[in-house]
Amino acid sequence: MTKLRDEYATTLTLALVESALQLVPSEIQAHPQVKEYAKRRQKSPREVVLDRAFHHAAMQRLARIHYKIPPDRMGRPDIVHNTLLQVLEPPLNWEDHLRTFVHTQDDYVISINPKVRLPKNCVRFVGLIEQLFAQGQVPRAGEPLLKIEKKSLPELVGQVKPTKVLGLSMLGKPMLLREVAQHAGELKEPLVLIGGFPRGHFADNTRKLVNELFRVDPRSLDAWVVAGRFVYDFEWSIGLGQRRVKQ
Amino acid sequence: MTKLRDEYATTLTLALVESALQLVPSEIQAHPQVKEYAKRRQKSPREVVLDRAFHHAAMQRLARIHYKIPPDRMGRPDIVHNTLLQVLEPPLNWEDHLRTFVHTQDDYVISINPKVRLPKNCVRFVGLIEQLFAQGQVPRAGEPLLKIEKKSLPELVGQVKPTKVLGLSMLGKPMLLREVAQHAGELKEPLVLIGGFPRGHFADNTRKLVNELFRVDPRSLDAWVVAGRFVYDFEWSIGLGQRRVKQ
Repeated sequence: MTKLRDEYATTLTLALVESALQLVPSEIQAHPQVKEYAKRRQKSPREVVLDRAFHHAAMQRLARIHYKIPPDRMGRPDIVHNTLLQVLEPPLNWEDHLRTFVHTQDDYVISINPKVRLPKNCVRFVGLIEQLFAQGQVPRAGEPLLKIEKKSLPELVGQVKPTKVLGLSMLGKPMLLREVAQHAGELKEPLVLIGGFPRGHFADNTRKLVNELFRVDPRSLDAWVVAGRFVYDFEWSIGLGQRRVKQ
Repeated sequence: MTKLRDEYATTLTLALVESALQLVPSEIQAHPQVKEYAKRRQKSPREVVLDRAFHHAAMQRLARIHYKIPPDRMGRPDIVHNTLLQVLEPPLNWEDHLRTFVHTQDDYVISINPKVRLPKNCVRFVGLIEQLFAQGQVPRAGEPLLKIEKKSLPELVGQVKPTKVLGLSMLGKPMLLREVAQHAGELKEPLVLIGGFPRGHFADNTRKLVNELFRVDPRSLDAWVVAGRFVYDFEWSIGLGQRRVKQ
């Protein structure tokens, strides 16, 4: 298949931020629900990814001890998984016009090699993320397909050096997603932030990094829906959809 | 939140067809991999959904006995799950302009109530589908959110009575997805078929039902990507995106 990359077209950098993806916090590693879950998966409780679908009772303890992150915003690896499946599989990524990062609530940043083929099954995906936390990169040797580092969002922005940081949030100015994508496509190096959490808004520290904040629907959309749609609109804004179908 | 449903706008009927969603076939229910998997989930081997991520070895036996469906097209509940999350969560469904069906390789049809909130976790989703196969509907009493019936695709088309059946396939006529959606939005009752299998093409019996077949990219797209994009384009074709952002 001929690549249709347009050298002069903009590359989109997409970051899923404050994502609800973390290992089980030490405070609840001894909880029976976590211990049993870890045992069933033949891992230690400190090696497993927190998942509300399996650790609901244990997470209630986090609420009682006033854990630093509100537990109802934690433990949703499915948000990261679904969003990545939606943005890494389409043409924009095949044509090498996309850079993707996952920033987590605990200030880790996962850098994603556009060549990665993620597992489609969520249990396999969670296993891969656990391997990533344990090893720092996957695969362990050679060119990393996934890499994780302790890194704050300001540090990530400093590394990406975008022309402008756009954010999608219910607190932003109303604008059609398609127009936001058009705008992003006209920038030299746009960075777009989408929240990787199930409810609530960007933290103040995230807000401070955003140059322009947009609300694209009167109701909150799931991260994987808005990210998938944005990638699609962005393909149009750089003319990729039009070029591909002519092949 | 005010509903923005336009009574005169078209409702889209979307069917994911020949989907790789089935219970473990009787031929491999005694396979050690299946037995161990079922035991771990505290179910009987005949009650569990086939999943390539867990039953790969057992599925090789299906190939050796020349099972009626090629095993490399079977056992992918994640395709159905990801696609449903991508089409049921967006505005088109909230605004009641979408009817969704899942047709399976074994000729079952799942009818989806637009009000359903599916589990985001894939293990929970598979559990729900197993409950659905066992009970025929979920919940067991009252208005069904999911209903499953033995039904062929021609029977489903006879029930939906569409003005036209459109299909998305690599064997179709090249057209921009956006133009296909525009075309569908102008029909009175369009039915759109998307393949719910990992590789290959529609079966001949499916092809015969299709009035117009379109290829929307030179490379095969995942069902959840193309379905999500089509729903988005369809929202535009009936003016929903434009109306919503003005709220």
